[in-house]
Amino acid sequence: MLSVKGFSGNAVAAAIKHRDRLDLGLLYSERPATVAATFTRNKVKAAPVMDAIGRLGSGTEQFRAILVNSGNANACTGSRGLEDVRDLRRWGADILNIGEADVLISSTGVIGERLPMERIKAAMPGLVDGLSANGLELVAEAILTTDTVKKTAFRRINVDGIPAVICGMAKGSGMIGPNMGPPQATMLAFIMTDLKVVPDWWQKALEKAVAVSFNRIVVDGDTSTNDTVLAMANGMAGNDPISERHLGPEIEKTLSALAMDLARQIVRDGEGATKCIGLNITGARSDADAERVARVICGSPLVKTAFFGEDPNWGRILAAAGRAGVELDPGRLALRVGDVELVRNGQGTGTEAEWLARKIMEKRDFDLTLDMGLGKGSIRFLTCDLSDEYVRINADYRT
Amino acid sequence: MLSVKGFSGNAVAAAIKHRDRLDLGLLYSERPATVAATFTRNKVKAAPVMDAIGRLGSGTEQFRAILVNSGNANACTGSRGLEDVRDLRRWGADILNIGEADVLISSTGVIGERLPMERIKAAMPGLVDGLSANGLELVAEAILTTDTVKKTAFRRINVDGIPAVICGMAKGSGMIGPNMGPPQATMLAFIMTDLKVVPDWWQKALEKAVAVSFNRIVVDGDTSTNDTVLAMANGMAGNDPISERHLGPEIEKTLSALAMDLARQIVRDGEGATKCIGLNITGARSDADAERVARVICGSPLVKTAFFGEDPNWGRILAAAGRAGVELDPGRLALRVGDVELVRNGQGTGTEAEWLARKIMEKRDFDLTLDMGLGKGSIRFLTCDLSDEYVRINADYRT
Repeated sequence: MLSVKGFSGNAVAAAIKHRDRLDLGLLYSERPATVAATFTRNKVKAAPVMDAIGRLGSGTEQFRAILVNSGNANACTGSRGLEDVRDLRRWGADILNIGEADVLISSTGVIGERLPMERIKAAMPGLVDGLSANGLELVAEAILTTDTVKKTAFRRINVDGIPAVICGMAKGSGMIGPNMGPPQATMLAFIMTDLKVVPDWWQKALEKAVAVSFNRIVVDGDTSTNDTVLAMANGMAGNDPISERHLGPEIEKTLSALAMDLARQIVRDGEGATKCIGLNITGARSDADAERVARVICGSPLVKTAFFGEDPNWGRILAAAGRAGVELDPGRLALRVGDVELVRNGQGTGTEAEWLARKIMEKRDFDLTLDMGLGKGSIRFLTCDLSDEYVRINADYRT
Repeated sequence: MLSVKGFSGNAVAAAIKHRDRLDLGLLYSERPATVAATFTRNKVKAAPVMDAIGRLGSGTEQFRAILVNSGNANACTGSRGLEDVRDLRRWGADILNIGEADVLISSTGVIGERLPMERIKAAMPGLVDGLSANGLELVAEAILTTDTVKKTAFRRINVDGIPAVICGMAKGSGMIGPNMGPPQATMLAFIMTDLKVVPDWWQKALEKAVAVSFNRIVVDGDTSTNDTVLAMANGMAGNDPISERHLGPEIEKTLSALAMDLARQIVRDGEGATKCIGLNITGARSDADAERVARVICGSPLVKTAFFGEDPNWGRILAAAGRAGVELDPGRLALRVGDVELVRNGQGTGTEAEWLARKIMEKRDFDLTLDMGLGKGSIRFLTCDLSDEYVRINADYRT
């Protein structure tokens, strides 16, 4: 059960896209919380993302509430979309009796339609009335779209003898494909902690965590217009502020692990996904080269359908690596599925290895390691397979 | 019916992958033909591609025969794969009674398996015995893999009163996604003409034709290890040699149109494809920007599944453009499906337009135009949709 000192939550069904489904959520902090944030680098940004970027600037700010809806992305909605965001902030502030500047808005869902503002307005009193310390999980449910499971993570920490918590929730199943370079993200995630933090460090810690987690997952490679990670620290644990010098590295580890946990849940629940594959690239000329190769392999329809078919079709993986536009010597490539060596010196190792690899690929989770034999560059990505179910979901998503 | 003066062809079933299916073809020219060529830029290149690149160098050479097989790509087969190519050349030369240097080899099919050399050797006498002027179509059939239809094109031309022919055949259905920059190609295509040509001009003419045709199609975006276009000109029409100065521009037009014709056939027969979409990008800062945007849209799983669902889901198209990494102002974007304006100033134009757009998208072929409103850069690509059938084909391709 998600729970952090000073935070409450609630969600209601506002009929934003579907009837009788939680689609409007509220996260609320008793005290102003220091918010770190990362956003999509897609040039086409949704109204709530533009609004939040404008208000957070490049640094952290204090906020009290995040109002979030699913079913409608409020993207490509022009100036009216931005006005709707401001109205939502004002309504939330009025009813919570806080300042308009204390509220952040986040949205996910269909692009290009205006939010059903009247229905949201009508749902807000009930939303605020029902706020409770046990209500965070309801928000985790309300933010889901094509997701099939709720995604939450929770870590207890001890800071100088003071107990504290970092926890989070995420949504994301399709349109999952990070663009390069932090700060950025590819889905919605809200992280809450009662730690007291130094704002600059908190932002840097979040960027680091995002860079090694959400930034290294691919479902379909389609970067969204709405991707947002917000991390709220309300300081109610009463610790001495965490900073680069005071316990920073330790808390960064916890934060990164939590983000990784959520990122993995997104890939495992990727649209239509039946497999979660950990792809390690090693021996590249540089980490950047390794990342480029990983992205191309994770985005290759032929590789992803072979995963779905549990087919150790290593030729497709090598061909994908070969078109990544980085230095590569085919004769040095080696590929392992789990601990089975499938390719050595650019050539297959035989039918027995393929048979063993196929056995491993029948599992829900497995690892794949491509060694390029050129240098020390490496990276680890998480991706999923491409199934007929993905096609079904996305050919029908709006209709 | 494909037919060109001085060229003959034949194909037989050599049981390379399947029984009783044409899989070994031979194209033969009575006289040495000037061959222009383009090859994949994938860093992982198949043995026959490496062999041909080595022999053609950067310029044209004279050849007499192309021996081509489907069912096996002879890729990732190491030095033994290269030896097999040389053996094939030698066997072909011996039986045709020409020089080993007169023969080119081309392959397509599964990666990572050695060619069944004995079965090919056993099939070669019958292959050569059956050569005939009417046999070119048999070769067009033998090169198919997951293709469902034969792809040929034919143009009659008149050069200073002398009648001549340019014709061609192609294969390609999956692993179709050109990499940037000529010379290159993304499938197999063999072009034959009885024109007499100046070698340097012929190579340039082919590069130009490939750049605007095969180089602008995307099925799944996976660039192959074996992509090859070979264009043979045997000079038997008896015309004065075509060059930059002598009728070059005119013949280039015909050659490009022929290549475009074949490229379109590949997209229409894309694995699992039910639609062929002409994507025009206009108003980009540069043609290179337009190409980048076109490639991202054509490769987007979400856009392609929306095409399959006949869903005018313009938000996905704008989101794909937004992640292409080029200059873009969301407020200036305009999108048309056929002649229906679906997006203006970055926003939807309403439900009636969507209804009209859906009607157009129900057709097998339709056009889509994204205007970026920034400059004069433009490009036209052809792509197809992503259906559950694509997944089925590729989850099972090897098994």
